[in-house]
Amino acid sequence: MGEASLAEAVSARAIDPDLEAQLEATTEARHASYLEFLRIPSISALPQHAGDVRQAAEWLAAELRRIGLEHAEVADTAGHPIVYADWLHAPDAPTILVYGHYDVQPVDPVNEWETAPFEPFIRYGRIVGRGAADDKGQISMHIAAAEAFLATRGALPLNLKFVFEGEEESSSASLPLWIRANLERLACDAVIISDTGFFEGNRPAITLGLRGLLYTQIDVRGCATDVHSGGYGGIVENPANALARIIAELKNRDGVVQVPGFYEDVVELTPAERAELAEMPLHEEGLLEVTGAPSLHGEAGYSVLERVGYRPTLDVNGIWGGFQGEGSKTIIPATAHAKVSCRLVPDQDPDVLFGRFRDYVLAVAPPGVEVKVTELGGGRPSVVSADHPVARAAARALEATFGAKPYFMRSGGSIPVAEVFATVLNRPPILLGFTNPDDHAHAPNEFMRMGNYETGIRTLCRLWDDLASMHQIREGEA
Amino acid sequence: MGEASLAEAVSARAIDPDLEAQLEATTEARHASYLEFLRIPSISALPQHAGDVRQAAEWLAAELRRIGLEHAEVADTAGHPIVYADWLHAPDAPTILVYGHYDVQPVDPVNEWETAPFEPFIRYGRIVGRGAADDKGQISMHIAAAEAFLATRGALPLNLKFVFEGEEESSSASLPLWIRANLERLACDAVIISDTGFFEGNRPAITLGLRGLLYTQIDVRGCATDVHSGGYGGIVENPANALARIIAELKNRDGVVQVPGFYEDVVELTPAERAELAEMPLHEEGLLEVTGAPSLHGEAGYSVLERVGYRPTLDVNGIWGGFQGEGSKTIIPATAHAKVSCRLVPDQDPDVLFGRFRDYVLAVAPPGVEVKVTELGGGRPSVVSADHPVARAAARALEATFGAKPYFMRSGGSIPVAEVFATVLNRPPILLGFTNPDDHAHAPNEFMRMGNYETGIRTLCRLWDDLASMHQIREGEA
Repeated sequence: MGEASLAEAVSARAIDPDLEAQLEATTEARHASYLEFLRIPSISALPQHAGDVRQAAEWLAAELRRIGLEHAEVADTAGHPIVYADWLHAPDAPTILVYGHYDVQPVDPVNEWETAPFEPFIRYGRIVGRGAADDKGQISMHIAAAEAFLATRGALPLNLKFVFEGEEESSSASLPLWIRANLERLACDAVIISDTGFFEGNRPAITLGLRGLLYTQIDVRGCATDVHSGGYGGIVENPANALARIIAELKNRDGVVQVPGFYEDVVELTPAERAELAEMPLHEEGLLEVTGAPSLHGEAGYSVLERVGYRPTLDVNGIWGGFQGEGSKTIIPATAHAKVSCRLVPDQDPDVLFGRFRDYVLAVAPPGVEVKVTELGGGRPSVVSADHPVARAAARALEATFGAKPYFMRSGGSIPVAEVFATVLNRPPILLGFTNPDDHAHAPNEFMRMGNYETGIRTLCRLWDDLASMHQIREGEA
Repeated sequence: MGEASLAEAVSARAIDPDLEAQLEATTEARHASYLEFLRIPSISALPQHAGDVRQAAEWLAAELRRIGLEHAEVADTAGHPIVYADWLHAPDAPTILVYGHYDVQPVDPVNEWETAPFEPFIRYGRIVGRGAADDKGQISMHIAAAEAFLATRGALPLNLKFVFEGEEESSSASLPLWIRANLERLACDAVIISDTGFFEGNRPAITLGLRGLLYTQIDVRGCATDVHSGGYGGIVENPANALARIIAELKNRDGVVQVPGFYEDVVELTPAERAELAEMPLHEEGLLEVTGAPSLHGEAGYSVLERVGYRPTLDVNGIWGGFQGEGSKTIIPATAHAKVSCRLVPDQDPDVLFGRFRDYVLAVAPPGVEVKVTELGGGRPSVVSADHPVARAAARALEATFGAKPYFMRSGGSIPVAEVFATVLNRPPILLGFTNPDDHAHAPNEFMRMGNYETGIRTLCRLWDDLASMHQIREGEA
């Protein structure tokens, strides 16, 4: 089956016929609402768009009220507002918290857009515009699914809490505080984040894991000031050479981290997981094209998907020291510095690892310099099992609506809010997103395939109906 | 014998009594001229002082004319002028070219000066002011010695050519061009550079060698742009990690450069040289205090003086790539870069070494990145033997006047003009300088001990008389 055609080719929308009829009857209005949402230039990173961000929040709260959700609120924060709404009239059914974000990326380089980024349009099965995929489109899908239930049955099959953030593309700074301040209101049985997409070839996928993070800085000091490399070369240690040695000692040539105990708590891949990952059609040429890298490279003995999802990493994020200008300056720099971070996987703990990392850095540091290691941040990995009842239900709903078994994936990244849901609410989120992988998120000509959008709404309808009768869907609760 | 007191304690000024009497009779006038020279703020690095630099050149040319030198000229260049003068009426005696510079360093931080930098004064056996040591004081000594001869005998004992530069503290950009354009005029039997000083404890010293230089840049490229360290960490090689590995492979933990053939052309220290260096009283505590380094460090198996004078080095002069700001940014940088330079010793050739360096860097570079190595500059080492007739004569003159055998030293640095004299004129220079090692050159409260100044004038008188009868003093000529 060809690239990007799978989702569109499936006609089987195995959902309640009343819901299907309602969705078909309201297609035009739904698309009009989606386009209206996209027209609001809610760029959270640019201060001059603060008013637009608020307008988007107000528009969203009004839309949630219009379809029948309750307690719709535009909650002020120190930054952009958070939009909350819920429907809680299914006492015997579980409660699901859905997260999305209504802010969007800046539009630079604007001259690479074929049309104006905030004048969206639907053509040839695509809706094009900033936010079409990331993430207004997915919020629009949740609104549409809920509206179909409320319009058809006057009720949802389960309890829903919607949390839509306005700072995801800038900082997500306010959300953790707001979650901690609203623990009771946000109590739920499971969290679904709808801000991801399908696998290569537009194959349905569910993301079950996010890596954690340990972020450090290494500072190396030699002489009190930069000194002349002629007068002192050969007499004193060079902090930049020393830093390079330290960094080189952190991994061997096979990409294996050399910090003692680094892999001690890593949960090894099971043969079943390895077999499943091996089945996934990954095109290395595509990765080379996207990144522009000369070749792929990583920890020996693991495939690309294993490395990015199931294995920890260690990367220099930045390095600096001494002369960086044109031409030549003959100094031995006084100091050299590096930002070094690790992506972590279950059951690695950033604080435990920091101690091991620091001890090792100090142990391999050459004499003649002073070395300081500082922890700048950390977050635990967040993973739910493929056997989680919501993951299983989502997989069934995707297969029933898109006609293909979804892949279970792990993302290499770390979403801070995911960790907050996991640690503060004790609900490691399931990442159920519907965008096509070629969606140009964060880039010019962002778009969403209408097939993904329309079928995805059916997936959500099917999922809510399916979850309604499950009484025990929590995982990992004490 | 206490620090800095040796030179002043010596009264034996074994020179022609007529010269001595003349020098004693003109002390006041000589000091007045020295002070006048210091009052001109000839800071070559600051454009607003261009007029002062020219004024100093004009003053200097007039002074050279006044004492009886000929062909005194302020030669225009693309930058600051060069002052030339000569006296060439000793057809049977050798010709010596003397180099110095009349420009000075900026005076920042000016509030750390105890008195105004350009209001010099003599007190407690010191002359204090910007340029007192580096290098106006040494030019003043040469003028005084020549004046004593011309006033007493009406002639110099040999032929002298003075070349005084006005750009040494900024670039020396014009001098090489001017030398190449004036080869016939500058023909000589030996070159003496008077811009260095005595050894620790104010012990007389002659510098016979300067290291050469190979300056390179290493550029490492991975992805086409910075990529997310979550999404791509473990998939692509990180250019900053790769660069650190390359740099770490350049030297081992004992400070030994690992580039094949790097030491192939290095002339090993002779047992005699090692014994002589071992005799020199080097205070490592002093070096630690000056540099602020936690400890000294260098190539295993060699002493500090051996390492700085007789052994090549390899140092990172600058390194950069990725995120350098406060806090954390989770990227894999697209590129990483380093400036890496080597100080070279006889008989290393920068161009030959660059090829070996580049080949090795490319050989040790890990896969997954593209590496480029560029040569940004180079210069050959410049060394004359301690048996050079001028070196031997200078040593005798220093011992006769200062009462102590001088040390023969090699400087770790590279003076581009020295290489020009060595390669263009085929006269590797002898560095005969007289400043006390605690002279605060380039720093606030620069000063010269009057003992060094006055006795050094006698050294020059003795040296010129001694060299007059030598017919063969050239070294290294084809």
